[in-house]
Amino acid sequence: MTIITLLTDFGLTDPFVGILHAIIAHRCSTATLVDLTHSIAPQDITAGAFWLERTHHWLPKGTYHLAVVDPGVGTQRTAVAARIDGHIYVGPHNGLFDRLIARASSVELRAILSPPFPHTPSATFHARDIFAPLVAALANGEFRFEEVGPSVSPHPAQPNTAPASPAPSGTFGSCQGTVVWIDHFGNLITDVESTTLRSIPDPAILILDKLIRLSHTYADVPTGELVALVSGFDTLEIAVRNGDAAVKLGAKLGTPVVIEPSRGPALSRGSDPASAVRAPPR
Amino acid sequence: MTIITLLTDFGLTDPFVGILHAIIAHRCSTATLVDLTHSIAPQDITAGAFWLERTHHWLPKGTYHLAVVDPGVGTQRTAVAARIDGHIYVGPHNGLFDRLIARASSVELRAILSPPFPHTPSATFHARDIFAPLVAALANGEFRFEEVGPSVSPHPAQPNTAPASPAPSGTFGSCQGTVVWIDHFGNLITDVESTTLRSIPDPAILILDKLIRLSHTYADVPTGELVALVSGFDTLEIAVRNGDAAVKLGAKLGTPVVIEPSRGPALSRGSDPASAVRAPPR
Amino acid sequence: MTIITLLTDFGLTDPFVGILHAIIAHRCSTATLVDLTHSIAPQDITAGAFWLERTHHWLPKGTYHLAVVDPGVGTQRTAVAARIDGHIYVGPHNGLFDRLIARASSVELRAILSPPFPHTPSATFHARDIFAPLVAALANGEFRFEEVGPSVSPHPAQPNTAPASPAPSGTFGSCQGTVVWIDHFGNLITDVESTTLRSIPDPAILILDKLIRLSHTYADVPTGELVALVSGFDTLEIAVRNGDAAVKLGAKLGTPVVIEPSRGPALSRGSDPASAVRAPPR
Repeated sequence: MTIITLLTDFGLTDPFVGILHAIIAHRCSTATLVDLTHSIAPQDITAGAFWLERTHHWLPKGTYHLAVVDPGVGTQRTAVAARIDGHIYVGPHNGLFDRLIARASSVELRAILSPPFPHTPSATFHARDIFAPLVAALANGEFRFEEVGPSVSPHPAQPNTAPASPAPSGTFGSCQGTVVWIDHFGNLITDVESTTLRSIPDPAILILDKLIRLSHTYADVPTGELVALVSGFDTLEIAVRNGDAAVKLGAKLGTPVVIEPSRGPALSRGSDPASAVRAPPR
Repeated sequence: MTIITLLTDFGLTDPFVGILHAIIAHRCSTATLVDLTHSIAPQDITAGAFWLERTHHWLPKGTYHLAVVDPGVGTQRTAVAARIDGHIYVGPHNGLFDRLIARASSVELRAILSPPFPHTPSATFHARDIFAPLVAALANGEFRFEEVGPSVSPHPAQPNTAPASPAPSGTFGSCQGTVVWIDHFGNLITDVESTTLRSIPDPAILILDKLIRLSHTYADVPTGELVALVSGFDTLEIAVRNGDAAVKLGAKLGTPVVIEPSRGPALSRGSDPASAVRAPPR
Repeated sequence: MTIITLLTDFGLTDPFVGILHAIIAHRCSTATLVDLTHSIAPQDITAGAFWLERTHHWLPKGTYHLAVVDPGVGTQRTAVAARIDGHIYVGPHNGLFDRLIARASSVELRAILSPPFPHTPSATFHARDIFAPLVAALANGEFRFEEVGPSVSPHPAQPNTAPASPAPSGTFGSCQGTVVWIDHFGNLITDVESTTLRSIPDPAILILDKLIRLSHTYADVPTGELVALVSGFDTLEIAVRNGDAAVKLGAKLGTPVVIEPSRGPALSRGSDPASAVRAPPR
């Protein structure tokens, strides 16, 4: 049984995703199609790269992925098929696969130089005209991976889009990250991985002048209060129990978050830990 | 052929639902997955319970249902598998199944005490880590219902979440209900069932100071006018022909609606039936 | 392998589409269901007709289509099954199929006079009660197309809803069209087909006092600038590179667009081509 996932910034209001489903289903009728998300913000390669890397653990080896966040569609940007740790990806080589590549044991990239199918692709919809037929042809064995095109260097397409989660550094082992996703509930998903978080003793989370202790689950705090926890995708999440953290905090994509040991310098400087980090707006 | 439905408050913007599809499809490749809705308002157990009960008539016996509106995720709240009138449900036992239980001929509940699968579940995503693998394992015969865990009392989890639709009562056989859903068109779906409605002679519907006669379909009134009718899910619906009733009336979830016989006390008191019910706002 | 597509104005927030999937899957378990779009604006028959016609080229002959934008549901409006150039459509005969009919080589319509299935249809949800069971029954061979009902004239249901794209006319071969869709990115999709566009030498596109030259793809202009191109569905599209053209221009559904040769009368009148077309608002 073959799974083909789709991740795009196409949204769900237009017929674009439906046409991709039809083209893939027609070419590879045995595949099960799974829409990971089509709600990546337009052109947000960073968020696309984040979810490709964070979700692949939940999918079996041998899964195929169509991934399209493609502001350069119609230009000479490279398009690739990628074999990364036993999964196959097809899409533009613009940074979308960089997070995967940075953590992979095994990476192989092939450039899609000429569209593998007879008709002329449109200038604006390569997902339909190139990537969807190709991923379906790979999934049904019509094409072998090696036949896609010449090898491409597995170096990241955009070295600085591979999001951070730096190892804890500095005297006190603090680290920082950013909000990379705001989910349907208003929960803030950051790129700080749980291993980083757990390497900091008794971590305190600082975001937009609020200081939050690390909890286990939403219900560890009263309704309406801020809570920090490890998300289901193994990175730091900041939420409001039965509420909307993005609204409560005024947080946005890219809002920074700092994690320190509770006895770190910022927190031990004064009596009010939050004020020590950044002067509150009054 | 096995159908597995999904009903959650997860929305469609995040990869959450896609991961559920992948996990279920991988474990039970023969199942057909049907997304009932993922647009239950966050934590709105009442709306989830309403739609589970109103939609199951349209699905064959033997259908499996993954139902997750779960504000208590990660706490000690009970999780269950439920066999109700030939359908199997899996989810938290927090009121979500109460409307089904209240009307069922046959109910059997089993507690999910320990996750049936080896890995450690996350604290925040039991839909993925417990409920989805379990519903798939039940659907493919890997697990028998009786093996899920010990029997649980079929008493409703939250007796007062089983929505009302009381039998007509009082001298004049009036009844009342509430708006439990506002659909994509702005139509107001109430919990007043058609049998209740039809037991009231020549019913008049009173909502937010408007009095509406019962019609058969939208086009029974001119474009832009209010119309009351029996919805496709067999409860009272209030709509505006080719318009948005929620906007026109300023109605919200929980807005009350009263149904009286047209010759009821409120309506026969004065010459203007609407003014008799509640003084209009001027 | 049989594909059944769905196109409606039902949105994705209610359980309506899920119930359609369940009913079709239960009756025709071998079909692959493809949601073309459920985001047609409520009652927008023109947009529904546009997408039915523009997408069918990307679907194999023998595809079945459930198409429901049905403001007249519950009235005596005709419902049909239509065989058009090797595809089968089921839905209301209210203009939804007119664009297809206008361009087809082969059209055959059958009226659905009485619901083909035993139960009594609701007054408001014929998609579930009539159209979905019928399209599934046709797809699985339970019903032959000829058995649906008597032939109906293939004349368009609403002659003037078949959108324009008139052949270029006038001394200078100009033409005009309208914005029929605004996509998830804010791109404006018009009904001016590429053949019309290409018949005008060196076309200049005029919309809301802006003059735009025809380009090949988004990246032909700097980020944030207006670009006109042929969309993936072969009509004129107006976009902003990595931005939102609907917001930038204040365009809406129905906004007119004029195409002229660059040396046409409006454009050769003065030194500033845009001002020649329509006086800017100051």
